Amino acid sequence: MKKINKKLNASIIVIGNEILSGRTQDVNVLSISNWLNGLGVKLEEVRIIPDIENTIVQTINEVRKKFKYVFTTGGIGPTHDDITAKSLSKVFRVKYCYHPEAFEILENYYEKGKFNIGRRKMAKMPDTSSLIYNPSSAAPGFYIKNVYCLPGVPSILNSMLGGLNNKIIGGSQILSKTLSLRTVESEISIPLEKVQKKYKNLEIGSYPFFKQGKIGVSLVIRSRKIKLIKKCTNEIIKFIKKKKIKIIVNK
Amino acid sequence: MKKINKKLNASIIVIGNEILSGRTQDVNVLSISNWLNGLGVKLEEVRIIPDIENTIVQTINEVRKKFKYVFTTGGIGPTHDDITAKSLSKVFRVKYCYHPEAFEILENYYEKGKFNIGRRKMAKMPDTSSLIYNPSSAAPGFYIKNVYCLPGVPSILNSMLGGLNNKIIGGSQILSKTLSLRTVESEISIPLEKVQKKYKNLEIGSYPFFKQGKIGVSLVIRSRKIKLIKKCTNEIIKFIKKKKIKIIVNK
Repeated sequence: MKKINKKLNASIIVIGNEILSGRTQDVNVLSISNWLNGLGVKLEEVRIIPDIENTIVQTINEVRKKFKYVFTTGGIGPTHDDITAKSLSKVFRVKYCYHPEAFEILENYYEKGKFNIGRRKMAKMPDTSSLIYNPSSAAPGFYIKNVYCLPGVPSILNSMLGGLNNKIIGGSQILSKTLSLRTVESEISIPLEKVQKKYKNLEIGSYPFFKQGKIGVSLVIRSRKIKLIKKCTNEIIKFIKKKKIKIIVNK
Repeated sequence: MKKINKKLNASIIVIGNEILSGRTQDVNVLSISNWLNGLGVKLEEVRIIPDIENTIVQTINEVRKKFKYVFTTGGIGPTHDDITAKSLSKVFRVKYCYHPEAFEILENYYEKGKFNIGRRKMAKMPDTSSLIYNPSSAAPGFYIKNVYCLPGVPSILNSMLGGLNNKIIGGSQILSKTLSLRTVESEISIPLEKVQKKYKNLEIGSYPFFKQGKIGVSLVIRSRKIKLIKKCTNEIIKFIKKKKIKIIVNK
């Protein structure tokens, strides 16, 4: 059982100079990660890389062997810097050619005479790809083997994730519990470490925060097993109460 | 000259389960990237990895050879999941021990008797590290060789970057120009590709947007050379005018 769960992991490759250059704040990692949590797939690595074919090919070749699922964002539009589909063809050594269904979808989407050569590029993808449908703006994403290529525009990407739900074979959901405390990390680090050592198959994260001028620490307990989370939470609450620390959030 | 500039690159390693789990939106990549632009250092890769020692050691060992500068964020607090300093000691095969100055800074910061063992952990780092001072909350970051370790809390990280300005040997600033147009990408992709092919040492990015219900495309032209940006912009404006596309932003 453990072995199966272990394999339910994923990596995201953000393809985009605009993120690296500091022009654009990425928000897709957060939404894909939360969607994966619901499917019981654990996001274990993210890479943000530039729009350079060699870099894309090398990176995908590395991660597709390490992770069960790979998601790419960005680079599937009609302009010169959209090279994800072409690069993926090189990864899998297949032709980069028109996908008949994608071509048809786009041809129907545009007015007669407006389906120009720039727009046609969006129907080109690695041979043998399957489509990821796009309810927002027609141009589909695609997947080939374990690599799923999504667009970079967050609203379009979000509208496409639902269509993938039955394509991703997930596991039991990854659950999490948050305890926010009116304390500082260094006040609780020793007893907290003891609890973490006792519960090896569960993750306890500790995150300091500043809200409305007040400091605090959020403890986040994550596992696929609700019972384990409950047991661990009770042990934490025990030492928290002994130290007379106030619990602000318990959910 | 070109060869020197080429080497002025950097990578960021975000160490944090909270980002991978979708709990927290990373904002540090954006601020470090913009700070690096001002120093003339180009961010070329980002990785987000979990709080696992082996993964940290392997990742840092890979990127420190590929990039001139490596910045890590997260994992330098007092709790059990803060393992950046210990992992870096393994990367450079040096002792993980108290840094005398860091110890003194923290000892002075806390009231007498409050500098407990949890807090002392924040003074432990790889032997031979130098400090990155922290004007917000005392606990310093550190750097060893070309790896600079910063905290994960954005406000604290931002307060520490300034202190690094004279430690990073940069180059001529990376400049950028934005042209926002009332059009769609597929309308301009062909002439735009021609311009990009002509200007090989300059990056043109094309980013569709939706604002207040209206669509548009932002073209971002980036280079270290202002003259090159101006020449390229003029060529783009030429074909934009011919197509009677409205320019919304030109800055």
